[in-house]
Amino acid sequence: MSSICVIGAGSWGTALAISLAKKGHDVNLWMRNEEQLKKMNQAKENIKYLPGVLLPNNITLYHDIHAAVKDTELILLTVASQAVRETVSSFKSSVCDQQVIVNAAKGLEGSSLLSISEVIAQELPNNPFAVLSGPSHAEEVCRDMPTTLVVAANKKSIAEYVQDIFISPKLRIYTNPDVTGVELGGALKNVIALGAGISDGLGFGDNAKAALMTRGIREIARLGQIMGADLGTFAGLSGIGDLIVTCTSMHSRNRRCGILIGQGKKLSEATASIGMVVEGVVTTKVAYELSKKYDVEMPITSEIYNILYKEKDVKEAVVNLMLRSRTHEMEEVVANQQIQW
Amino acid sequence: MSSICVIGAGSWGTALAISLAKKGHDVNLWMRNEEQLKKMNQAKENIKYLPGVLLPNNITLYHDIHAAVKDTELILLTVASQAVRETVSSFKSSVCDQQVIVNAAKGLEGSSLLSISEVIAQELPNNPFAVLSGPSHAEEVCRDMPTTLVVAANKKSIAEYVQDIFISPKLRIYTNPDVTGVELGGALKNVIALGAGISDGLGFGDNAKAALMTRGIREIARLGQIMGADLGTFAGLSGIGDLIVTCTSMHSRNRRCGILIGQGKKLSEATASIGMVVEGVVTTKVAYELSKKYDVEMPITSEIYNILYKEKDVKEAVVNLMLRSRTHEMEEVVANQQIQW
Repeated sequence: MSSICVIGAGSWGTALAISLAKKGHDVNLWMRNEEQLKKMNQAKENIKYLPGVLLPNNITLYHDIHAAVKDTELILLTVASQAVRETVSSFKSSVCDQQVIVNAAKGLEGSSLLSISEVIAQELPNNPFAVLSGPSHAEEVCRDMPTTLVVAANKKSIAEYVQDIFISPKLRIYTNPDVTGVELGGALKNVIALGAGISDGLGFGDNAKAALMTRGIREIARLGQIMGADLGTFAGLSGIGDLIVTCTSMHSRNRRCGILIGQGKKLSEATASIGMVVEGVVTTKVAYELSKKYDVEMPITSEIYNILYKEKDVKEAVVNLMLRSRTHEMEEVVANQQIQW
Repeated sequence: MSSICVIGAGSWGTALAISLAKKGHDVNLWMRNEEQLKKMNQAKENIKYLPGVLLPNNITLYHDIHAAVKDTELILLTVASQAVRETVSSFKSSVCDQQVIVNAAKGLEGSSLLSISEVIAQELPNNPFAVLSGPSHAEEVCRDMPTTLVVAANKKSIAEYVQDIFISPKLRIYTNPDVTGVELGGALKNVIALGAGISDGLGFGDNAKAALMTRGIREIARLGQIMGADLGTFAGLSGIGDLIVTCTSMHSRNRRCGILIGQGKKLSEATASIGMVVEGVVTTKVAYELSKKYDVEMPITSEIYNILYKEKDVKEAVVNLMLRSRTHEMEEVVANQQIQW
């Protein structure tokens, strides 16, 4: 068994720490908030984010980030995407080149338009890196409900090492060489989840949401392909798999935030009401800017961007998306199809 | 406006008849059950399948199938897949070659392993044919909730004609040349929906179901490709779109049937409790036999087949699917990927 440091004790960090500890690994769980740390040590559970789930004894809580990362084999990052650079920068003087860095945040850096792997490559250029993604609500993982994840790395040996660390009877880990595709799938599905929530909040039904999700994964794949990802990845667990779980479950903060906006709440009210970071909000802005940079048509992302950042009327935006005016319109998938009339 | 005959007054037939009539078409709605017809004429609604939704006055109910089809431009088939051949055979003496036949049933013929387009080609070889599919619960379409459908035909002019007939501000119709893909997507997603329901019925969560759906669309696409369909179609509305709506909504009979089986009910009890045809039950058998015929790996279909027809223990089958034993497993999508280690 190994010694693992988990950076961040939100719901996902705590759930993965619990899963790793149950497998027998020694887990150092770092959290910024000292007050919260004391409460968690007393209660032996994360009352704020995962109430009712006991923390195993081989999880040690840390407030000193240098002490937390020191001498561990693997450092798992679960902080919000916008906090990754600052957090890594704060502990990197204590990191050795052998320590494997794994990112589990699903977002892109707003200030630079970079993916988290690119941020890490700047901050810790010598360390092996992998990204962990896939359809996985923390609330289910921490309760041992069957879940599949994907780990992507540039080196097969790294992906397989991380796979070995995390795999358990209830947590199946698959490997994939496409770091860019896995990162983009995990980040961009949150934009579509905001849209799915808005559709739900407006009182549209399952038919409308399924149509939105189908078009959503296509625009994600279009951008991904131009950025060097493999189209197949978007048909997999970190693509449609994660999109499905995020757009249809009430566990999803991004969907819940969208529902509130669809019901007429302002963005600031909606995010305040969720009480946790809603990654999709910044990701929408980054995705919008990437679509301009790479000249890729992303109608859903554009309309969500207009709603969030340009105060566009929610109903008008969604009706735009659903009901286009051309009568003789072929399905989008037909464009690249072999079968032709 | 046109004169349309809708064959079958179940929920989907009634919903499409309502949608067509609201657009201004004259609709002849044929139903087998004379008792039901009388009730529907009195109540001006389909109390059994779509309670609370008024039938427009330009829907005329018919019990005489010859009178219903006579002199109409388009005949829309909405009967269960296993009843299509017999039903079409019963009225074909009254059909002219110009009448366009559109099938909206989502299944395959159990006795022959044929698709509905192939059945129609045998029964009415001279008539233009199209298939109508996509993510569309009748309960939402009849209430004007935004919905997208796909119409596929071998001839573009036929697809566009059917598109013109059905399109409305709330019902968007897209065309696609891939008849085989659209038919297989619509039929085979019901097998996966049974599996998704079983997973839900066993108390597994959203993570597990998303994984099952992701693998499900892949095995549908594998079979479809070998049978001549275009892979892109399975990434579209009649592929993942319909899969999503069927696996996640309580409107889906196939999912609800699966939930009951997952909770321990026998197949016969589950289907009796649903009270409408559960297309996925026969489709599972056909899909299983097609997977053998074409030598395609379809692990989910095989396990659902074993549950439904071989009394395999439900939990064992689903656990088999979720938790495979190989540790160093790559994601399925990696097989055809450009990016390699």
